[in-house]
Amino acid sequence: MAIKYEFIKECKQSGARLGKLHTPHGVIETPIFMPVGTQATVKAMTPEELKDIKAQIILSNTYHLYLRPGHKLIEKAGGLHTFMNWDRPILTDSGGFQVFSLGDLRKISEEGVEFRSHLDGSKHFISPEKAVEIQNSLGSDIMMVFDECAPYPADRQYVKNSLERTTRWAKRCKEAHKNTDKQALFGIIQGGMYEDLRKQSLEELLELDFPGYAVGGLSVGEPKNLMYEVLEYTTPFMPKDKPRYLMGVGSPDCLIEGTIRGIDMFDCVLPTRIGRNGTAMTSQGKIVIKNAIHTEAFEALDPECGCYTCKNYSRAYLRHLFKANEVLGLRLLTNHNLYFLLKLMEEVRQAIREDRLLDYRNDFFAKYGYDNI
Amino acid sequence: MAIKYEFIKECKQSGARLGKLHTPHGVIETPIFMPVGTQATVKAMTPEELKDIKAQIILSNTYHLYLRPGHKLIEKAGGLHTFMNWDRPILTDSGGFQVFSLGDLRKISEEGVEFRSHLDGSKHFISPEKAVEIQNSLGSDIMMVFDECAPYPADRQYVKNSLERTTRWAKRCKEAHKNTDKQALFGIIQGGMYEDLRKQSLEELLELDFPGYAVGGLSVGEPKNLMYEVLEYTTPFMPKDKPRYLMGVGSPDCLIEGTIRGIDMFDCVLPTRIGRNGTAMTSQGKIVIKNAIHTEAFEALDPECGCYTCKNYSRAYLRHLFKANEVLGLRLLTNHNLYFLLKLMEEVRQAIREDRLLDYRNDFFAKYGYDNI
Repeated sequence: MAIKYEFIKECKQSGARLGKLHTPHGVIETPIFMPVGTQATVKAMTPEELKDIKAQIILSNTYHLYLRPGHKLIEKAGGLHTFMNWDRPILTDSGGFQVFSLGDLRKISEEGVEFRSHLDGSKHFISPEKAVEIQNSLGSDIMMVFDECAPYPADRQYVKNSLERTTRWAKRCKEAHKNTDKQALFGIIQGGMYEDLRKQSLEELLELDFPGYAVGGLSVGEPKNLMYEVLEYTTPFMPKDKPRYLMGVGSPDCLIEGTIRGIDMFDCVLPTRIGRNGTAMTSQGKIVIKNAIHTEAFEALDPECGCYTCKNYSRAYLRHLFKANEVLGLRLLTNHNLYFLLKLMEEVRQAIREDRLLDYRNDFFAKYGYDNI
Repeated sequence: MAIKYEFIKECKQSGARLGKLHTPHGVIETPIFMPVGTQATVKAMTPEELKDIKAQIILSNTYHLYLRPGHKLIEKAGGLHTFMNWDRPILTDSGGFQVFSLGDLRKISEEGVEFRSHLDGSKHFISPEKAVEIQNSLGSDIMMVFDECAPYPADRQYVKNSLERTTRWAKRCKEAHKNTDKQALFGIIQGGMYEDLRKQSLEELLELDFPGYAVGGLSVGEPKNLMYEVLEYTTPFMPKDKPRYLMGVGSPDCLIEGTIRGIDMFDCVLPTRIGRNGTAMTSQGKIVIKNAIHTEAFEALDPECGCYTCKNYSRAYLRHLFKANEVLGLRLLTNHNLYFLLKLMEEVRQAIREDRLLDYRNDFFAKYGYDNI
């Protein structure tokens, strides 16, 4: 077994789980947020900077790396860890979500998905077997099955067909997986916003006995309350001795609410993407640094924050860097936002340990604001 | 006196000078290369990274900071050092070169230069007094006089008029300078490629007794041999007890040749600019990292280099970052190029100490290549 989930305790106030995930590249404390390094780099950050802000695991994208620089090149380099100089755990997605997002550029069949590259229009085919082969080349600690993610909204029959295909593909992925000692393959629960279909998906995947399970098909445009509802009728039936991963979720409120509903792992491009665009997550809510109000603001971005950016630079300086299109600006806000979310998850773990996660949530929102997420 | 030049020794082989420049923000070993931080940031680098690669002083641009964010804002922030979080010495140019480079957007008179901002077309006027006022607000350790830099080629009369105006403006700058205790104001020798005019400029400026002198009007398109010739008939007449600064020069060959001809200080955007474009200076000459030959090159950019980039990443990875337009790519090449030039100057200082700078030059070029500068 490549990984092992160690359950530590449940929060008496909320039911959230505290645990540790043992992987070939080290131990991760859960619940955890995973910064996204789409193209073998967490945008604008070095691995050392990620370690400084206590990133424990990062995510990278199979679709992007398959197209550029190619998984075979990364394999020759010694795998993704060596290639990008990151010696802690890596989770790779399957490329499924990305190819489905290509819209007119892709054609789905039972065999797999034919698509055109967003880079040069070249034609490609990814099957469940291919998605596993690519991830085996990359050498990630945690791999994801190739799934079909239904859009939102989608009718019941469409979603049912998708989830059943996802099960068949999950089986094929499992059979194609060559490196079970060093790489764990997670199943992905689909079923859209239909309670019975989520249950069906989960039951089918449980028979295949994956070392971890993700909840897929959420954060695809549905209202947040609907996402929380799906988690409420799904996670109680997920195995207690295996990690649970909510894909594509990364706003502070969703991290806290997801944790309360029993999720252990999250990933999202949100903190890095909005950081590059000049928006910071702070203890007082979001700040758009280019706004004129910050012109002569010589205080820190977030006076309560202990990150490199907040310890060393003023809002006025950060605003200047963004107005002048300086790379240092996006570096500093990326760093701050990731620190903010990783610190948030550290506080969430502490709150679980002390059985007060609901209190923590209420305090957090009272300051962060409900309308400013 | 804000600064003090301490002459240590002359290289017996070449006549190059070894020294120390004492400034309000610390001591600089000379000869030195100064990385350029045009807009209050050395592009893509943090101050800590600059210190890691042993940057001792940086340059920043008066023209750019006057327009954005404005010198008054920086003064309110506590000066440029505080604003950008850099506690070592800073040299600011006068804005002269930048406004003259605006071409049709500027009009020169005896009073000063009227110009339109390259950012928004707004109208501005910089006089010698204004250039000094701005630099006083910025609080740089070394300020430059507002000079008129003649283009190349330019006829004798034009160059003579320019240099004489530069002298008159230098006098006005000196009179306007408010903060002589903490900021040193350097004179700038003009005179184009005319030996007698260089001598005239120098003699006029010597009467004004500046704490340091720059050779201006070079690296403006003239052949390198001509630049060296100008240095050869100018530097021997410059004061031995004051620092000598060659403005706008930063290719490895010019740094070595300039040092041999008695220069102590250099600055240039070259290493940072070509780094952002994917070109690296290495012990074997220049490397264009996007070239296909590096696709599967798993060795370091420069196997002889000890920089962060060369110790941790392969050419193949760097190429991937540039092909994928990732910020980390330009960070890593900027870091490498600056390290390369700062290390070069460290070696140059050691060669002077050991009276073997000409040998060092010959060895350097034998490896770096004469045709690959």
